[in-house]
Amino acid sequence: MSVRIGNSTIAMSNAVSVTSFSAVGGKKEGEGPCGSFFDYIDSDDYFGQDSFERAESAMQGLALQNAVEKRGIEPEDITLMLGGDLLDQCIGTSFGVADFNIPFFGIYGACSTISEGLALASLLTDSGASKITAAITSSHFCTAERQYRFPLGYGGQRTPTSQWTATASGALLVEQGDSAPFVRAVTVGRIEDKGITDANNMGAAMAPAAYSTVSRFFGDTGLSPADFDAIVTGDLGNVGSRLLCELAERDGLDLREKHVDCGRIIYDQSSQDVHAGGSGCGCAASLLCGRFLPEIRAGRLHNILFAATGALLSPTSSQQGMTIPGISHLVWLSDEKGEF
Amino acid sequence: MSVRIGNSTIAMSNAVSVTSFSAVGGKKEGEGPCGSFFDYIDSDDYFGQDSFERAESAMQGLALQNAVEKRGIEPEDITLMLGGDLLDQCIGTSFGVADFNIPFFGIYGACSTISEGLALASLLTDSGASKITAAITSSHFCTAERQYRFPLGYGGQRTPTSQWTATASGALLVEQGDSAPFVRAVTVGRIEDKGITDANNMGAAMAPAAYSTVSRFFGDTGLSPADFDAIVTGDLGNVGSRLLCELAERDGLDLREKHVDCGRIIYDQSSQDVHAGGSGCGCAASLLCGRFLPEIRAGRLHNILFAATGALLSPTSSQQGMTIPGISHLVWLSDEKGEF
Repeated sequence: MSVRIGNSTIAMSNAVSVTSFSAVGGKKEGEGPCGSFFDYIDSDDYFGQDSFERAESAMQGLALQNAVEKRGIEPEDITLMLGGDLLDQCIGTSFGVADFNIPFFGIYGACSTISEGLALASLLTDSGASKITAAITSSHFCTAERQYRFPLGYGGQRTPTSQWTATASGALLVEQGDSAPFVRAVTVGRIEDKGITDANNMGAAMAPAAYSTVSRFFGDTGLSPADFDAIVTGDLGNVGSRLLCELAERDGLDLREKHVDCGRIIYDQSSQDVHAGGSGCGCAASLLCGRFLPEIRAGRLHNILFAATGALLSPTSSQQGMTIPGISHLVWLSDEKGEF
Repeated sequence: MSVRIGNSTIAMSNAVSVTSFSAVGGKKEGEGPCGSFFDYIDSDDYFGQDSFERAESAMQGLALQNAVEKRGIEPEDITLMLGGDLLDQCIGTSFGVADFNIPFFGIYGACSTISEGLALASLLTDSGASKITAAITSSHFCTAERQYRFPLGYGGQRTPTSQWTATASGALLVEQGDSAPFVRAVTVGRIEDKGITDANNMGAAMAPAAYSTVSRFFGDTGLSPADFDAIVTGDLGNVGSRLLCELAERDGLDLREKHVDCGRIIYDQSSQDVHAGGSGCGCAASLLCGRFLPEIRAGRLHNILFAATGALLSPTSSQQGMTIPGISHLVWLSDEKGEF
């Protein structure tokens, strides 16, 4: 039985382990400061395909295949997979994983997708509903840009608050087991909408969601930032990261020392011209799978909170003048099984 | 602990009950043969809003509010909600449920969404991860038509195999408890792609997925169609329903006597001009919540298999000449708790 703690946090009752993980990325991501964390970098972002949409699917397939091979299993050993992406109707995932023939639940959490997938995978593995559970997501600069904003050839100016969609994918496997990293607890996000309408400032739209989830985790568990090596958010970028720390400070919670944002570290902001940072489902997913999970496995990180964030807008909602609701799901990752 | 049966079926280990359900629909749905099953029918499909997208969100909010009120609880008593819809980035749901302030996981399964939501809600309630779990979805003819096909004013001809997207929403609550209907088991779908590329023939694209899931349920459990009052599929329509029965017959499985398809019964095909039948997430969801769950609660149906089906295409994938992958998730609903 899962153990509910407080209002919205759920602790694992078994040792739930992330047993394999893989990160795949594009050229720009390979050239950034996190380039060495990727298992594979594609040289032209086409991944051998003839459209960017097919490239994104191929990238997901590659990430999943890597994770499976590292674990030494076959794809059909996976008993359940959870995945989704930013493309309309999540076609990046549907076409990316169809050939693997694995029982599949589609999920949608925009850039929070890997948190949602890892949270659901952990809960369903903890309960025994699934034995080996995969979570996967991706984003691709060229598919997202032309779907959400402008045709690629248009060459529109980007505003200072805009973020650069990462071309990247992360895939991971969750099982009951005795090897770190372990999932200790998850906090499910609520949709937060503070009335932001600027689709080029998604960091501001998502920061309240991140804060809502992180603060509820601390409230539910009685833990504090001092108990963690890092509090990792998805892709708030420069603007959203500043807002998150300010929102926390108002409530007397100091996140500044422990806060790391994937959107701020995936690119070199002085040389890679990404404005407010990176974004996209693949940004947080690839750094989770390429950097943070390996660091916990190696014992260099002991406890982190991982809270990817998503902006639940669409071009249609923005064109109709709607606000941008945000959501963030949190996963506590640890090198100890522990008991709650 | 959940109990895995065979390859992809999971039985509940506790008595998991669907404790409340509500169906809301549009004018055409109200005029059809299932009109009396809806809790509310809107007279002009705008649900008091000024755009069809906002109307779809308002419809979802209404369905959820109804389900909550029938159960005599407050929205904040819901510990987890799962929902999604057909619109790009699932905005129907994000804007429909944001104000309820409930921990929320977005899901995407196209027209199989209510099966996916009910399956996940059941598994997470069975394990104790959630106490009162909601699942919700919707579709709206006017939002789907202009997003997937043509502007509404264009008045394009529809092919004989095309289906009519229902304007409807279904919401339900799942809890551990002692009152029928009970969820006995779920079978998670796999993505099936038989190479269909005609976006106006989604029944044909989805039938293999429905058959894959239904046949795996029978294989995993050793049960047969004779054990059920009805085998209900989502929205295969006339073409897909015929294909499903043919696929089953090839394997010596006779579904014809027990098979009911929501897409075939939601409209009067002789007078409502819907060609191959109804479709959309709301079609199966509203008939599940408005017709089948009440019939089980009343003891008029004892055991049914409910397998909504989804076509995982997007306009972009179709324009790029891609095939249409399908998926179907199955839920065994019963008026007895039973033991597996």
